[in-house]
Amino acid sequence: MANRVITLGREYGSGGRYIAETLAKELGIAFYDKEIIAMVAKESGLALEFIEDTGEYMSVSDQFAGLSGEYYTPGMSIADQVHVLQNNIIASLAEKEPCVIVGRCADYILKDNESVLDVFIHADMKDKVERAVKYYGIPAETVEKTLTKTDKGRATHYKHYTGQTWGIAQNYDLCIDSGFFGVDGCVETIIAAYKTLK
Amino acid sequence: MANRVITLGREYGSGGRYIAETLAKELGIAFYDKEIIAMVAKESGLALEFIEDTGEYMSVSDQFAGLSGEYYTPGMSIADQVHVLQNNIIASLAEKEPCVIVGRCADYILKDNESVLDVFIHADMKDKVERAVKYYGIPAETVEKTLTKTDKGRATHYKHYTGQTWGIAQNYDLCIDSGFFGVDGCVETIIAAYKTLK
Repeated sequence: MANRVITLGREYGSGGRYIAETLAKELGIAFYDKEIIAMVAKESGLALEFIEDTGEYMSVSDQFAGLSGEYYTPGMSIADQVHVLQNNIIASLAEKEPCVIVGRCADYILKDNESVLDVFIHADMKDKVERAVKYYGIPAETVEKTLTKTDKGRATHYKHYTGQTWGIAQNYDLCIDSGFFGVDGCVETIIAAYKTLK
Repeated sequence: MANRVITLGREYGSGGRYIAETLAKELGIAFYDKEIIAMVAKESGLALEFIEDTGEYMSVSDQFAGLSGEYYTPGMSIADQVHVLQNNIIASLAEKEPCVIVGRCADYILKDNESVLDVFIHADMKDKVERAVKYYGIPAETVEKTLTKTDKGRATHYKHYTGQTWGIAQNYDLCIDSGFFGVDGCVETIIAAYKTLK
């Protein structure tokens, strides 16, 4: 039997990361979010901050940016190399053990694996604003701009590497509004779904 | 306390209508799908077939089609009049009793009502094809084309009257893949969510 895995995409401010962490704890399985960045850093020798940015975010201009110097590989940008390395790590984590993997196109990377539950967490702007100010300490004056910019970066990255639209229901088995269900409601619903996985 | 209502959008072939009907039976509440067409027909004097087409489907060319003759009202096309009438009927059904309402932009019409659970049901093409051939009797040779065309009409209609994208997770409280969860799994998950409504 393949390992049962949850991939969890999330809007910034939706509490998705916290939901993913709670899921992993309650199910007693591994949790991978920023841990993946450390693994890519170790394998590549690149800085953590660079990988964090490159591995999940992308501005439109990044797509056209050329790279040169010591990291130059003919035909492949450094961002693409990070992406390939990250993909391989995600695939090997799913092979290694049951786990929850946050973001990083994991739904797409593991799309041929039938023991994977793909989840997307979103919320209304007012709920995300409240959470981001309260828990992430983002200043109230700029919070909407930060939320929008972060998700735009995630959507552009996802589109670039999967060809799909980020946050469209069809890409996931389950999409949940965390403002509507609350964190506990989301965790409960996802656990029930996880238990049906083969 | 306001009536608790489920609005259910669905891809053609996803089994959404059957899920909605099962939900209504299990919850012991009213079910409105084609019943709405009969109500619009009664109020407007227009033919059922015309309302069925106009109330939920739209080709791109329809958006620009002018209308004239006995149904002509300055500034408002017949399609828009059907839409307004349908909106009013949906709003009054939600006021009258707890119920399940299928399609027809009901999520958007009732968006300011906090006692409404907005659900979207989708499935992979192979699951929809199987269901459409088996249960709806659509010929296997043309089934993919029929499924795609029907949903394109629904998406265009939804965009035209709500300004939103049909099937995008953010418009709904819960989006579920019926191929993944099966009809029973969908019904169970939606009932659990319905019970949390105020």
